[in-house]
Amino acid sequence: MTAHARDRQRPVSTEEIFASHEGGKLSVDPLLPLDSTRALSIAYTPGVAQVSRAIAADPALAQTHTWASRLVVVVSDGTAVLGLGDIGPAAALPVMEGKSALFKAFGGLNAIPLVLNTTNTDEIIETLLRLRPSYGAVNLEDVSAPRCFELEQRLIEALDCPVMHDDQHGTAIVVLAALRNAARVTGRPLEGLKVVISGAGAAGVACANILLEAGISDVVVLDSRGVLATSRTDLSSVKTDLAARTNPRGVSGSAADALRGADAFIGVSSGTVDEAILAKMAPDAIIFALSNPDPEVHPDVAARYAAVVATGRSDFPNQINNVLAFPGVFRGALDSGAKRITPAMKVAAADAISDLVGGDLAADFIVPSALDPRVAPAVAAAVADTVSR
Amino acid sequence: MTAHARDRQRPVSTEEIFASHEGGKLSVDPLLPLDSTRALSIAYTPGVAQVSRAIAADPALAQTHTWASRLVVVVSDGTAVLGLGDIGPAAALPVMEGKSALFKAFGGLNAIPLVLNTTNTDEIIETLLRLRPSYGAVNLEDVSAPRCFELEQRLIEALDCPVMHDDQHGTAIVVLAALRNAARVTGRPLEGLKVVISGAGAAGVACANILLEAGISDVVVLDSRGVLATSRTDLSSVKTDLAARTNPRGVSGSAADALRGADAFIGVSSGTVDEAILAKMAPDAIIFALSNPDPEVHPDVAARYAAVVATGRSDFPNQINNVLAFPGVFRGALDSGAKRITPAMKVAAADAISDLVGGDLAADFIVPSALDPRVAPAVAAAVADTVSR
Repeated sequence: MTAHARDRQRPVSTEEIFASHEGGKLSVDPLLPLDSTRALSIAYTPGVAQVSRAIAADPALAQTHTWASRLVVVVSDGTAVLGLGDIGPAAALPVMEGKSALFKAFGGLNAIPLVLNTTNTDEIIETLLRLRPSYGAVNLEDVSAPRCFELEQRLIEALDCPVMHDDQHGTAIVVLAALRNAARVTGRPLEGLKVVISGAGAAGVACANILLEAGISDVVVLDSRGVLATSRTDLSSVKTDLAARTNPRGVSGSAADALRGADAFIGVSSGTVDEAILAKMAPDAIIFALSNPDPEVHPDVAARYAAVVATGRSDFPNQINNVLAFPGVFRGALDSGAKRITPAMKVAAADAISDLVGGDLAADFIVPSALDPRVAPAVAAAVADTVSR
Repeated sequence: MTAHARDRQRPVSTEEIFASHEGGKLSVDPLLPLDSTRALSIAYTPGVAQVSRAIAADPALAQTHTWASRLVVVVSDGTAVLGLGDIGPAAALPVMEGKSALFKAFGGLNAIPLVLNTTNTDEIIETLLRLRPSYGAVNLEDVSAPRCFELEQRLIEALDCPVMHDDQHGTAIVVLAALRNAARVTGRPLEGLKVVISGAGAAGVACANILLEAGISDVVVLDSRGVLATSRTDLSSVKTDLAARTNPRGVSGSAADALRGADAFIGVSSGTVDEAILAKMAPDAIIFALSNPDPEVHPDVAARYAAVVATGRSDFPNQINNVLAFPGVFRGALDSGAKRITPAMKVAAADAISDLVGGDLAADFIVPSALDPRVAPAVAAAVADTVSR
């Protein structure tokens, strides 16, 4: 039995989960000794006054002589936490602590959770502006749609540092990486795929955008009422914009209409999809059923109609896990001194993830393991390389 | 040669100070393993969802199952940094990082620096209210007087957690501890001392308040224009209030008038005091010349007129160092679940510090070493005991 198999075998109990979270999941530790008068005089007074005086004279020194320029703040108002919805900032905090822990474990970056007692977009932006000298990048997390789109866009404009809403772009980057390899494994050019995205929330909109950015022209997006089309009059501004940039064949109607003859289905809807509809997809179809914890269709059912199946779950092959993307994306952005995380950087991150699969590429292995230590450095290098080009 | 003497002997170079601060002085680290699928499913999804759901159902669980309830935020707007003045938030950050490091090293508490791009009292309060679910206590630091008094008072009223402006109360607690032992060593009751405080800024006001709280009735405070007296018409509201509660003999005039026959001089003014004036103090006088890096009077000069001399410097005996107070005060407040840091808690902290000197008490040893590992636990226990009484 492999270590991995043994690992899976041992069940996780509720008791173990709660015991593991007691007291929180993060520790802040000094990087310098503080055990002698001499050490104190270096790390604190009077020595620290020299560093403070130098930064006052030359603000650029704050980049190199404080922790802030490489500190990620993991920011949430708790309005769309995992599959739990609007449970508020205090209940969101365990997720943000976990995310901060992942930033260190996979990206080697310091990160701290900041959960906010306000869901007002203006107030969130104002708060982060006031805290600006304290951090170097913003990972927005678990903010509800469509607020998340405006919030992210306005933060990007307001702040001179990398900002990324991971529920949008982390997911989108890994979806693109997986789709690229699914196209390879089924022998089709990525750009020619007919792709249907079910869900026009944070992840759905970002997936559509990155697929367009990567050169896929035939993308159709579904919301709960059917295909996003310019003819619809019930759309939000974000969906209206997306309808104008997608659906080139002018499909209208339901999921059944959209999926007829489609090459790829990407489910990010928290809904379900009928087996009969999947049966109408093109041969060698690709099905990514990414809702968690319950995929839109069980992967065993999906496999009847698809050559490649992926989910968000670690207990099936091809797990689409954001941790493949965000640690390396932020690391690369901060390493390169980028002020923005651009569409090109996201595509480069996706390419780096898919390239790491290399010769192991197979229908049941289209993305690296979430635990593969090569991923974050490769993503970081690809992102940084995009900046320097 | 003792280790301590060797330690002092090796000079600290500017190069060493700057090299030590490169990249900042703090690290955020996961407390749980993140190296297997099973570990990820405990610390992050899907396991973390159980904890989030439980907190949403019972908010009290956030106290025990996140890090926030024991996290200290070290907050500054950079308006009064060390002796450097209003150098702004970015330049203040190395000090706040150092302070956060001391919280862990001495108090065993997680602490993070938050430096603010605003000096507006309303905005600082509003920002901390919005971040309230993220932390468990507020250490205000290096905020200029008289703004610091209003800011601290309004924060105490607005937040349901411990708030302390350390430049005020950390200093005051250690001054009271030292003065108590200075009175012992010179054979006088603390309450009967005639005390003159030079400086009516953050530290001066807090020192006056804690000495009154400890039962000393004859306290006279000086600002740059002389004795605070009710007859003066040029006083701020904070000084007017202080004048009404101090100076029971109705002294007026200058430092010379105040110090004639005084038992103790406490300098927290960043100024100087004339040798001739000190010569007029009572026999066996006590002189605390606490301005840093330059004491109001050199300790060798002070020793000509005083039985006990203390400074803020580590290279002379009797260092009045805030690190003796704040780690234990916050630790005790958080251990006991206190929502406020009360005057009684501050006096208890001072008593614990002075008691630790024990049989070693001498004119040149009135406070424990800043490095004495017994201090913070003793202070924490005394503070917590005050809460439970």
